[in-house]
Amino acid sequence: MSSSLGTLFRVSTFGESHGIGVGAIVDGCPAGLQLSEADIQPQLDRRRPGQSDLTTPREEADRVTILSGVENGLTLGTPIGLLVHNKDQRPGDYDEMDQVPRPSHADFTYQTKYGTRASSGGGRSSARETIGRVAAGAIAEKILRERWGVEIVAWVSSIGAEKAAGINSDLVSRAQVDATLSRCPDQASAVRMEALVREVLAAKDSIGGVVSCVCRNVPPGWGEPVFDKLEAMLAQAMLSLPATKGFEIGSGFAGTELRGSRHNDPFVQKGARLGTVTNNAGGTLGGISSGEPVLFRVAFKPVATIGQPQQTVGFDGKPVTLEAKGRHDPCVVPRAVPIVESMAALALIDLALRQKLWE
Amino acid sequence: MSSSLGTLFRVSTFGESHGIGVGAIVDGCPAGLQLSEADIQPQLDRRRPGQSDLTTPREEADRVTILSGVENGLTLGTPIGLLVHNKDQRPGDYDEMDQVPRPSHADFTYQTKYGTRASSGGGRSSARETIGRVAAGAIAEKILRERWGVEIVAWVSSIGAEKAAGINSDLVSRAQVDATLSRCPDQASAVRMEALVREVLAAKDSIGGVVSCVCRNVPPGWGEPVFDKLEAMLAQAMLSLPATKGFEIGSGFAGTELRGSRHNDPFVQKGARLGTVTNNAGGTLGGISSGEPVLFRVAFKPVATIGQPQQTVGFDGKPVTLEAKGRHDPCVVPRAVPIVESMAALALIDLALRQKLWE
Amino acid sequence: MSSSLGTLFRVSTFGESHGIGVGAIVDGCPAGLQLSEADIQPQLDRRRPGQSDLTTPREEADRVTILSGVENGLTLGTPIGLLVHNKDQRPGDYDEMDQVPRPSHADFTYQTKYGTRASSGGGRSSARETIGRVAAGAIAEKILRERWGVEIVAWVSSIGAEKAAGINSDLVSRAQVDATLSRCPDQASAVRMEALVREVLAAKDSIGGVVSCVCRNVPPGWGEPVFDKLEAMLAQAMLSLPATKGFEIGSGFAGTELRGSRHNDPFVQKGARLGTVTNNAGGTLGGISSGEPVLFRVAFKPVATIGQPQQTVGFDGKPVTLEAKGRHDPCVVPRAVPIVESMAALALIDLALRQKLWE
Amino acid sequence: MSSSLGTLFRVSTFGESHGIGVGAIVDGCPAGLQLSEADIQPQLDRRRPGQSDLTTPREEADRVTILSGVENGLTLGTPIGLLVHNKDQRPGDYDEMDQVPRPSHADFTYQTKYGTRASSGGGRSSARETIGRVAAGAIAEKILRERWGVEIVAWVSSIGAEKAAGINSDLVSRAQVDATLSRCPDQASAVRMEALVREVLAAKDSIGGVVSCVCRNVPPGWGEPVFDKLEAMLAQAMLSLPATKGFEIGSGFAGTELRGSRHNDPFVQKGARLGTVTNNAGGTLGGISSGEPVLFRVAFKPVATIGQPQQTVGFDGKPVTLEAKGRHDPCVVPRAVPIVESMAALALIDLALRQKLWE
Repeated sequence: MSSSLGTLFRVSTFGESHGIGVGAIVDGCPAGLQLSEADIQPQLDRRRPGQSDLTTPREEADRVTILSGVENGLTLGTPIGLLVHNKDQRPGDYDEMDQVPRPSHADFTYQTKYGTRASSGGGRSSARETIGRVAAGAIAEKILRERWGVEIVAWVSSIGAEKAAGINSDLVSRAQVDATLSRCPDQASAVRMEALVREVLAAKDSIGGVVSCVCRNVPPGWGEPVFDKLEAMLAQAMLSLPATKGFEIGSGFAGTELRGSRHNDPFVQKGARLGTVTNNAGGTLGGISSGEPVLFRVAFKPVATIGQPQQTVGFDGKPVTLEAKGRHDPCVVPRAVPIVESMAALALIDLALRQKLWE
Repeated sequence: MSSSLGTLFRVSTFGESHGIGVGAIVDGCPAGLQLSEADIQPQLDRRRPGQSDLTTPREEADRVTILSGVENGLTLGTPIGLLVHNKDQRPGDYDEMDQVPRPSHADFTYQTKYGTRASSGGGRSSARETIGRVAAGAIAEKILRERWGVEIVAWVSSIGAEKAAGINSDLVSRAQVDATLSRCPDQASAVRMEALVREVLAAKDSIGGVVSCVCRNVPPGWGEPVFDKLEAMLAQAMLSLPATKGFEIGSGFAGTELRGSRHNDPFVQKGARLGTVTNNAGGTLGGISSGEPVLFRVAFKPVATIGQPQQTVGFDGKPVTLEAKGRHDPCVVPRAVPIVESMAALALIDLALRQKLWE
Repeated sequence: MSSSLGTLFRVSTFGESHGIGVGAIVDGCPAGLQLSEADIQPQLDRRRPGQSDLTTPREEADRVTILSGVENGLTLGTPIGLLVHNKDQRPGDYDEMDQVPRPSHADFTYQTKYGTRASSGGGRSSARETIGRVAAGAIAEKILRERWGVEIVAWVSSIGAEKAAGINSDLVSRAQVDATLSRCPDQASAVRMEALVREVLAAKDSIGGVVSCVCRNVPPGWGEPVFDKLEAMLAQAMLSLPATKGFEIGSGFAGTELRGSRHNDPFVQKGARLGTVTNNAGGTLGGISSGEPVLFRVAFKPVATIGQPQQTVGFDGKPVTLEAKGRHDPCVVPRAVPIVESMAALALIDLALRQKLWE
Repeated sequence: MSSSLGTLFRVSTFGESHGIGVGAIVDGCPAGLQLSEADIQPQLDRRRPGQSDLTTPREEADRVTILSGVENGLTLGTPIGLLVHNKDQRPGDYDEMDQVPRPSHADFTYQTKYGTRASSGGGRSSARETIGRVAAGAIAEKILRERWGVEIVAWVSSIGAEKAAGINSDLVSRAQVDATLSRCPDQASAVRMEALVREVLAAKDSIGGVVSCVCRNVPPGWGEPVFDKLEAMLAQAMLSLPATKGFEIGSGFAGTELRGSRHNDPFVQKGARLGTVTNNAGGTLGGISSGEPVLFRVAFKPVATIGQPQQTVGFDGKPVTLEAKGRHDPCVVPRAVPIVESMAALALIDLALRQKLWE
């Protein structure tokens, strides 16, 4: 288990889906930052299940408590303890699964690795684990915003084969993103996506999608070659999220088909600094931010838990037909939006602090 | 600068493209391993430039010397120092670039971050920096192979829009990969790819591509949730390579279009262990290896250095037309094959050692 | 702020003396360990204030809650969250000190470093910060004991100039240590020490002392040269405790006066293994445990808070006479005993897990 | 093996006593620092054996080469590779010891831990391993001196029972230290110490001693509570050195006998800042530098290799009489002076860079 991330702004998360609670410790947050639960709660609310008919109805308030590190509304420079209590500590929905590793879930590998696993839910492999990340990410984002003006906005750019069109990454805002249930800021695309999700839901199935994210106003100089390049830290952060299968920055996989003469981003004077005419690079050069917007995309697979019967085998190798009870998210991608933003913030703040050494 | 990777098998690289040399220290290699330069040289030879008319003719012998950590052909358990001398310590080809940041190179960001940069070549942002990684990766791979039977094979699966067909990741071998200049093990695809590279070369242009990689016989249990999941460590490792723009594992971005009922990998008894019928997961579940082959793909952008004139601006903001002198790789993807294998080995060995704690 | 310790068994502590609570996350604890609050509480009880007339009467129950990482009485291999609520969240005793940095306290340096500090108590520089360490250390100690039979026993070997005599480190037990208020297992010495503490208390003064510690049954092979040698990890662990001023292992400072012919520990066959006739080394050779008992001593300065008036200056540089209100520990050394044991356990468990790689 | 130290200024050392060479990589050194071998060589020369009749005559030039990270006399911000070739790669003096673990050496524990060990000398447990530390420390010291005016001076404060008197830590200089063979800046004490060493040498014996060190002009604010306190980092650094048995800061062990009223350091205005009247603390409060000189002492045991015959047993348990051939240092303490300074510099620079985040 390795539940800490970051060199200078270090986040350590804890908690299973069905225990007393989940949370995080943030070590390395600068002193003197105005901070209260109200700064953290909004992103937790955005990731919370039960926000629309598109998501699972498990409704948890997910109220965060700051345990330490803040006094009189200001950070002390000491570790910030964050705790969210679980509402349902031990449901009965999962009993059958004790003997059967759910396909494309982590039951099998946790059991193999640890010789045991949380008896229900999914323990640390549950999406609930991301609460600690989002709480910590909200703090990181606040510092990035207040100190450097960094704006991080993620949105759903595809669900299944339905792809969003016409989104301007220079302008897109969280208000626009939250204006649709699917969190696709293009209204027409959103309508198609939501229809698809409802169709999938009716079929007791699930569907994947892609979250895009832009980080604007990242100053040039963030990123630590050669192993902690900005894109490497983002890639680790994103692939550490449950259900992610891919990461690309700038031109990404599509860019591999271009020629250099077309792909290269020529420099040009932009106000007081150099910028680039195009941004196929996605905001980094040699692993260091260039001053252009950091643009990346994250692939999420379809949710593994589906209502349809599945043929599989138990831990004993005997065939079994598995049918998930209860109701589950047909598509996690809209709820993944604040989670992607949070992980981006955690990757950026750590590199921002490491860059401070050079200033 | 952050030139160390790994928690237990820790690699620290050093060296610019045009100084005394490049290399690495490997700390954490188990004692008693048979090791000599002959175990390391083959992968260095595979990454060396000048191997065919498809690559740059800069010919360097790139002979590795073991400075420490090995005695009488056996590792001591102490740090292994690895050094490759540079042949050309200071060429004159790069002078003009002092005043002009090359488009899509790291000149601009290094200069901005550090207030200075290597006066020629690219310093640490040069592909030459990967020599230390490959040397260290060869050691990692030897341990993985001898102790667990792990086989790592990478190949070129696309160059530009030319995509390889018909490659069986369960069987593909390095001999097959090396049988073509393009390192695409499908002969017909290789012919098309090589024609494309020659066309691009003639046009003084460059082209990108995708390297695929399979890691076979990875035992179940490797990977440290939640932040050091196997795919997260691979993603960081790959995106830390020069010119990479994307990473995907298993079904990757394409998998986002599938439904869960189609994407899920049902379990089945396979000999003494459970396996999965399909492998859309790409060999990990919940960030932990499942025992199925680990399958991933890495996107490489077109080489930034091209012979065509490029309109850009100097550090002073004044327009300039840049035209690269000398000859450069039109396509790095074939040479990236051993580099991808090396980084995969480094990611795996560290997680393998971390898993040993549980055994 | 750097509140994490350990490479594989990683402890992250949090909490101020007067906030919601203090605690720790333990990441890297093996799965399948029987664990409940009852395993942790005893050492917390031993460090708790108010146990005798020798210590401060601030009585806090200091009951620990396990927030995560344990299910059905067994560890899951996931992070173990530990929380102890504070009873007194904001006392009024400390108001005057806002303007005056207490001599030999951390008020001045925290204020200088962070530009702020906890308004009361001492925040993270308070002895209360050690609760997280002790809770985590109790888990470490349980593993060390159950898996390797390691026994860790610390005791008070001096208070002021009163030194303990006649303690056999091969046999001393915690029961013997706890049999006296001063935690000196030699009854006659204990009587003298306690008389001294009462005298000091009556004089509204404080006094320092030395805690000795033995770790028995440590197998040979623990310790990671060259920077994470066993004695280096112990030294860091001990000097990270509040009020510590020195560490010595084996012959320590006294050994510098000996000649090699007298100081060297000759080898001898001991049952199935080699041991040494003497143990001036204190159980390590070259930074690696030898199989002989690990023996070390830690110096604690006199408590900085005293009832006597002190001439000092405020943050504004103006002279002021400071007189501590309330009642404070005249001597922390007896309460430091379980804390030293806990830190020893944390240093050992991490090296034990790192050594597992070689087995 | 764990041969890396530091979080931001990270040193990784390598090399055995009898291989191709020893050295280090320094990762995290700021760019733009004037640096050449001439900045590093003086401290290497000070630690070199064969400087007087008091030390071993093994004469090695110990010339350092900078492999990378420096161009045109300025650091690039990239890893600095440092290499010192060994002169004697494989002497025959040590053959007998293959079967006999030398008393109070690391032969036994290396063999037990790694299942092998360097066949001669002592490999990584040799004093020669400190060359990489000293080379890296010289760079750290240069930054500390040029940027903050930090002065680090160590000296021999005792050899055996001969203790130095009359040394003013506010004024003592390296020139004064180097003025005597024993590196004790008090002439009268030095004479006595040197007589003792010659007596010990004639007796084919060895003797220990204490090195004191002062770090002047350390600004307030360096040190990262709670685990990376300044004194904790110094303690780890010093106890990671071969042959060290103890560390104390400020009043140290002697301070445990004082009462708080006597031990406390009252604040007083000193020019523009607050200082303390006395400095029993040794320059830190709560693990953070106070602005007062950092003062500490390190205990070195007598050298384990002696010319006298020693009764011990071989790895096979059979008794043997061991008699060291050749000539060895009777006392390492004078040569330890630059090594202690180097480790102090490495501990300080890392905390200095970590403090920069708060400025």
